[in-house]
Amino acid sequence: MLSKEFPSVSDIEEAYQRIKDMVHRTPVLTSQSINKIAGANLFFKCENFQKVGAFKFRGASNAVTMLSSEAAKNGVATHSSGNHAAALALAARNKGIPAYIVMPENAPVIKKKAVEGYGGIITFCKSTQQDREETLAKIQQKTGAAFIHPYNNFDVICGQGTVALELMQDVESLDCVMTPVGGGGLLSGVSTYVKGRFPKVRVFGAEPAMADDAFRSLRDGKLYPSVNPKTIADGLLTSLCPLTMGILSKNCDGILTATEENIVKAMRMIWERMKIIVEPSSAVPLAVVIEHPEKFQGKKVGLVISGGNVDLNKLPWLAKE
Amino acid sequence: MLSKEFPSVSDIEEAYQRIKDMVHRTPVLTSQSINKIAGANLFFKCENFQKVGAFKFRGASNAVTMLSSEAAKNGVATHSSGNHAAALALAARNKGIPAYIVMPENAPVIKKKAVEGYGGIITFCKSTQQDREETLAKIQQKTGAAFIHPYNNFDVICGQGTVALELMQDVESLDCVMTPVGGGGLLSGVSTYVKGRFPKVRVFGAEPAMADDAFRSLRDGKLYPSVNPKTIADGLLTSLCPLTMGILSKNCDGILTATEENIVKAMRMIWERMKIIVEPSSAVPLAVVIEHPEKFQGKKVGLVISGGNVDLNKLPWLAKE
Repeated sequence: MLSKEFPSVSDIEEAYQRIKDMVHRTPVLTSQSINKIAGANLFFKCENFQKVGAFKFRGASNAVTMLSSEAAKNGVATHSSGNHAAALALAARNKGIPAYIVMPENAPVIKKKAVEGYGGIITFCKSTQQDREETLAKIQQKTGAAFIHPYNNFDVICGQGTVALELMQDVESLDCVMTPVGGGGLLSGVSTYVKGRFPKVRVFGAEPAMADDAFRSLRDGKLYPSVNPKTIADGLLTSLCPLTMGILSKNCDGILTATEENIVKAMRMIWERMKIIVEPSSAVPLAVVIEHPEKFQGKKVGLVISGGNVDLNKLPWLAKE
Repeated sequence: MLSKEFPSVSDIEEAYQRIKDMVHRTPVLTSQSINKIAGANLFFKCENFQKVGAFKFRGASNAVTMLSSEAAKNGVATHSSGNHAAALALAARNKGIPAYIVMPENAPVIKKKAVEGYGGIITFCKSTQQDREETLAKIQQKTGAAFIHPYNNFDVICGQGTVALELMQDVESLDCVMTPVGGGGLLSGVSTYVKGRFPKVRVFGAEPAMADDAFRSLRDGKLYPSVNPKTIADGLLTSLCPLTMGILSKNCDGILTATEENIVKAMRMIWERMKIIVEPSSAVPLAVVIEHPEKFQGKKVGLVISGGNVDLNKLPWLAKE
């Protein structure tokens, strides 16, 4: 059934009704001084203020809510060292079911603490993809928990799309919308909603040049894995999956990349001028605006700030090589 | 005329009408996780999002607007190395008059750049109080500029009081309100408004224990200077003046102090949990709540975040002694 292959605008609107009392309605902020530097009118949708500090809580909440009582009764499971892990742990706790989280043993202490703080049950594994998947499979076998993938999941994508629904309600007549792209869950949900309701609005993905697998995948029409990416945008290390690749091929007007230097510059600019804390991945869309000014000159642009979880002991502009 | 000695609620309401289209209406934010830690319901009035990144822009805007064309024609002047300097520079630029700023030669580069960025004309002096005042006197003599003191100024205090007007509009039935206290301009304006309109609401000042001159001054009923204070709350190094001391003796329910350790802890807590950037001075009220929990247990407390201007290269938790 085609309608269940790719999410539709209605699926996202239904997800919104489902989760709107669980999530924060995050603000859209602007900065005159950044607009002046960028030569464009920028509207930042601030998911750093979302619960668990990232948009991921929307998708996790929708996916957990969508589980039948039968499917949910043994809890949920995922492998992630990032925001999806914390988001799933909290969404599960809100539903009163356990969340089993497989994390690489070298994950930052701050991430482990976050997952534990939301009641997640952590199992450590080696940091290889293979060990992650094997460990998860064992846990599923043992517990019967339902696997909630961070982006290769219809309901997760619908939840992430609610970011765009709120943004388009709050800001009229945007020329384009841009989100960071890692696995493509956020961009898939956002582009589906925007193209479905506002077909003239362009939708872009923003990606680190040092991890440009989504750019190459969409350009060549074949899925490239993300091989040993070296970027400070630690939320964007993953690669597209067939589901997100399919959605983006249809709805996304292109992926634009930014250098590491511009990502750090954009991140610092947001901290200094907007007085908000955003993680490096969140700064990639602004970095793209800075790097490709000709594309955004005089335009009204919605940018999604994906999260604000940063290790305050390790700021990129203080890093010593 | 007594009514012009101390500002009244009406003076603050008039100031609000005067400046409301010049200033940002800043949001009031809350954090469930900080409330849980504090055991109180905290409402943060976020003046870190104000223009120039601090509440000081309210007072400077009101004072500059109140100048007669005769008094304003030669511009304005002040001595300050902090947020008041930037605020006055921008308020003057908005009115189309020059701002002469006397700054100690050892002021942080970031502060110099901010003042220059807003078009302020800087004259450097030695960092002693005497040289500041002498340099300012010379400039006034030469230019005829009107001196706008950062807090020993009726109109500045009225402008700062508009913070409370907005806070009390946005949050109903607060038990108490607390602001940082340095020279006392913010606390004077806020306490005048709150006590005038909501006499049952208690108003406290929050001060670093390492710079507790306001605490001692109000306790003993005599003005103590701030002697060589050693605190990271660099906005709170100044001492009360007769005007602010008079107002606070009448309207303030007390000054509470916090240790340096709790100030850093509170600042980091706000950054991590609320994802907003606040300067150390802004964290002092939360530090007081942490240090004196018995006073705030279960209460509904308004806390003023005074500003967000921080040198991102020098975060207090990364400082090496």
